[in-house]
Amino acid sequence: MEAVSAAAAQPMIKVAGICGSLRKGSYSRGLLRTASQISEESINGMKIEYVDISPLPMLNTDLEVDGKYPAAVEAFRHKILEADSILFASPEYYYSVTGALKNAVDWAARPPNVWADKAAAILSTGGSFAGVRSQYHLRQIGVYLDLHFINTPEFFLNTSLSPEMFDSDGNLLDESVKERIKEVLLALQAFTLRLQGKC
Amino acid sequence: MEAVSAAAAQPMIKVAGICGSLRKGSYSRGLLRTASQISEESINGMKIEYVDISPLPMLNTDLEVDGKYPAAVEAFRHKILEADSILFASPEYYYSVTGALKNAVDWAARPPNVWADKAAAILSTGGSFAGVRSQYHLRQIGVYLDLHFINTPEFFLNTSLSPEMFDSDGNLLDESVKERIKEVLLALQAFTLRLQGKC
Amino acid sequence: MEAVSAAAAQPMIKVAGICGSLRKGSYSRGLLRTASQISEESINGMKIEYVDISPLPMLNTDLEVDGKYPAAVEAFRHKILEADSILFASPEYYYSVTGALKNAVDWAARPPNVWADKAAAILSTGGSFAGVRSQYHLRQIGVYLDLHFINTPEFFLNTSLSPEMFDSDGNLLDESVKERIKEVLLALQAFTLRLQGKC
Amino acid sequence: MEAVSAAAAQPMIKVAGICGSLRKGSYSRGLLRTASQISEESINGMKIEYVDISPLPMLNTDLEVDGKYPAAVEAFRHKILEADSILFASPEYYYSVTGALKNAVDWAARPPNVWADKAAAILSTGGSFAGVRSQYHLRQIGVYLDLHFINTPEFFLNTSLSPEMFDSDGNLLDESVKERIKEVLLALQAFTLRLQGKC
Repeated sequence: MEAVSAAAAQPMIKVAGICGSLRKGSYSRGLLRTASQISEESINGMKIEYVDISPLPMLNTDLEVDGKYPAAVEAFRHKILEADSILFASPEYYYSVTGALKNAVDWAARPPNVWADKAAAILSTGGSFAGVRSQYHLRQIGVYLDLHFINTPEFFLNTSLSPEMFDSDGNLLDESVKERIKEVLLALQAFTLRLQGKC
Repeated sequence: MEAVSAAAAQPMIKVAGICGSLRKGSYSRGLLRTASQISEESINGMKIEYVDISPLPMLNTDLEVDGKYPAAVEAFRHKILEADSILFASPEYYYSVTGALKNAVDWAARPPNVWADKAAAILSTGGSFAGVRSQYHLRQIGVYLDLHFINTPEFFLNTSLSPEMFDSDGNLLDESVKERIKEVLLALQAFTLRLQGKC
Repeated sequence: MEAVSAAAAQPMIKVAGICGSLRKGSYSRGLLRTASQISEESINGMKIEYVDISPLPMLNTDLEVDGKYPAAVEAFRHKILEADSILFASPEYYYSVTGALKNAVDWAARPPNVWADKAAAILSTGGSFAGVRSQYHLRQIGVYLDLHFINTPEFFLNTSLSPEMFDSDGNLLDESVKERIKEVLLALQAFTLRLQGKC
Repeated sequence: MEAVSAAAAQPMIKVAGICGSLRKGSYSRGLLRTASQISEESINGMKIEYVDISPLPMLNTDLEVDGKYPAAVEAFRHKILEADSILFASPEYYYSVTGALKNAVDWAARPPNVWADKAAAILSTGGSFAGVRSQYHLRQIGVYLDLHFINTPEFFLNTSLSPEMFDSDGNLLDESVKERIKEVLLALQAFTLRLQGKC
C-alpha cells in the first residue's frame, strides 16, 4: 500500500531517447529499446520516448524560410522541447560523435535553442575504447546547448568484445549491461528532478 | 627564365578542398574559392580542387552493399584518395564541426581509410571565438584518419566582427585575410612535400 | 524593509576561489579579488574565500603515508570539502590549464574526492582566444571530479588586448568586465542553490 | 656484414623520454626504462635519454629573472632542445595529464619554445580506459608546442587489469606489451627521420 502511494507521488518525467546511428540493427538503438523497457518495468515515474532523427535533412540554413524550419525539423524540435531530459545513445564513429547525431543536435540548437536547461545522459558504444573518445565531444557541444549531463555513472559499452551481447536485430541480451543501464536511468531521473526542484 | 625553371622543378601537389557548410552563400566556401585563386595566382606547385560533400547521403552502413559504397560516396572517396593533402574549410556549429563535415569525414574513413597519411590544414570560421572550439575536435578525429595537420599558422576567422569582409555571395573581400590564407597554403604545401620526402 | 527581509531569508553559500597562476601580479588572482569584492558589496548570500594552492607539493602518491596526505594538502582538501561551490580563475597556458591548477585539482580528487557534487564556474584569461581552449579541458576533468559547471554565461578575458584593464598589481580596473563577473557569480549562486534544493 | 653496413648508414636519433609521474615505482617510468632497453637492444639508430622532470619548480614567471630561467629549468630546456624527438610516458590522472607533466611542458614552451617541430609519441597508462581521455589533451597542447605526434600505433595500457604486468619496482614484465612498445618506437623513429628529410 505504502509503495503504491509513493509511486503515485513520484512526478512523471519524459525523456527523449536519441540514437546517433541510422543503421537498422544498430546496437545503440537496441540500448534505447532496452532503456525504454527498463523504465516501464522497473522505474517509477520515467517514460522514455524514442525520437527518430533519420527524417532530418542535412542542416542548411538556406532551408529556413520565413523563420520556419522544414516540417521534419519542426517536429523533431517540438519533441525535444517537451522532454524533461535527454538520453543520447551515441555510437563513436572515428573518435567523435556521428554526423547524423551532430546534425540533429544542431537543428534543435537553432534559435530558440530547445535543449536549454535539460538534464542529459549518454550511453555510448564503440570498438576497443567503447566510445570514450566521443562522449567528451558531446559534452563540449552540450555547454552551448545548455545541457546538464550527469557525471556518474558514465556508460561505455565495448561492442567488439562480446558480439553475443546483442542478437542479430540489435536487441541487448546481456543482463549485467541492463543493470548498468538502469543505474544510468536512475541517476538521470534523480538529476532531472533535482534540477526541476522536485526532489 | 630562372623563375620558369624553378617552377618546373617544384612538384605539383593536389589539395582537396572540403567545405563543412552546405549553405549557398557560405563564408567557408568563399574561403576555399579564395584559397584556390591564391594557389593559382601566386603559389607555385599547388592546385586546390573543390570537393563537394553535398551529394553524400547520411552515413548508414546498411547502404553498403556487396562491399560497395553508394555511387556519390565512391566518387567522393576517389577524390580524397588521389589528393596529396586536404584543406578543410570548417565552420563551427555549436562548439564542434558540422554534421555534414563529420558525415563526409566518416564516409571516407570507412575501410580502406582514404585519408591516411596525408597532410592537412583547417580554415575555420565562426562567431565570437571564430571556430576555436571546433578545430581540436577535427584534430582528434584526424588521429584516427591518420592525417598530419600543420600546427602553424592556425587560421580562425571571426565572421561576426566584420560582415563586410564578405560580399553577399560569400566572396572574401578582405586583403589581410587573403594574406593569412596564403600563409596557411604555403605551410600546407611545405608540410606536404616534407612528408612526401620531396623537399 | 522588504529587501532586508529577503536578504535575511537568502541562505549563505561559501565559494572556494582557486587561482591557477602562482604569479604575484596574476590577472587571474586579480579577477578573484574583484569577484570577492563584488560578492560582498552587491550579492546577497555569497561569500568567496580565496584558497591558495601555492603551498601544495607536486602530487606524488609516495607522499601519502598511513593514509594521510601532507599537511598542506589536508588543509587544502578541507577547504574544498567545506565549500558549497567552486570558482576557478584559470589562466590558459599553452592550450590547457596550468600545471599548478591541475596539481591542486588532483590532490583534492584523491580519495575521498572532495570536489564531488559541487557547482562550479570558470573565469578564464589568456592571450588572443582568452583561454577558450583550456576551459573544456577543465570541464572534462570535472566529469571525474563530479563538478557541475554552469553553462552560461561563459567567461573569457583576452588580457592581451587591453593591458590597461589591470593595474600593475593585477587589480581589475574595467567596469564592464566587473559587470560580466557579477553575472557569472549570480549564475553560480543560483545553480548552487538549485542543486542544493534551496531555491 | 651487410647488416653492419646498414647499421652504420642509419642516422642516430636522440629521443627525450619524459615521465609524467613522480612516484618512485611509477609504471610510466617503468615503460620508459623498457623503451630504452628495447631501443638499445633491438633498434638501430635510436637512443632514448630519460629526462627527469622532478627537479622542476612549479612554473611561476616571477622566477624568470633577467631573461633567465631557474637552473633546473635551463637544464631541462637544454635537453629538450637537443633531442630529435620526444617520448612521453603520460599517466592519466583524473581525465587529463598530470600537473607535473603539464608543468614541465609549460617550462619548455616558454620563449623560445624548445619543443618546436619535433616528432613525438605517447605511452599512456591508467585505470579502466588506460589513459585514453588524456592523450588528446596532450595532443591539443602539442599544437601550440608545434609537436608532430605519430598517429599510429596509439599506445594505451590498462594497468588496473593486470597488476602482474609489472614487478614491485615498476619494471614491465609482459612480453606482448614490450612488443607493442617496440612498434611505437619504430614508428617514432620513422616519423622523426621522415620529418628530418633523412628517409
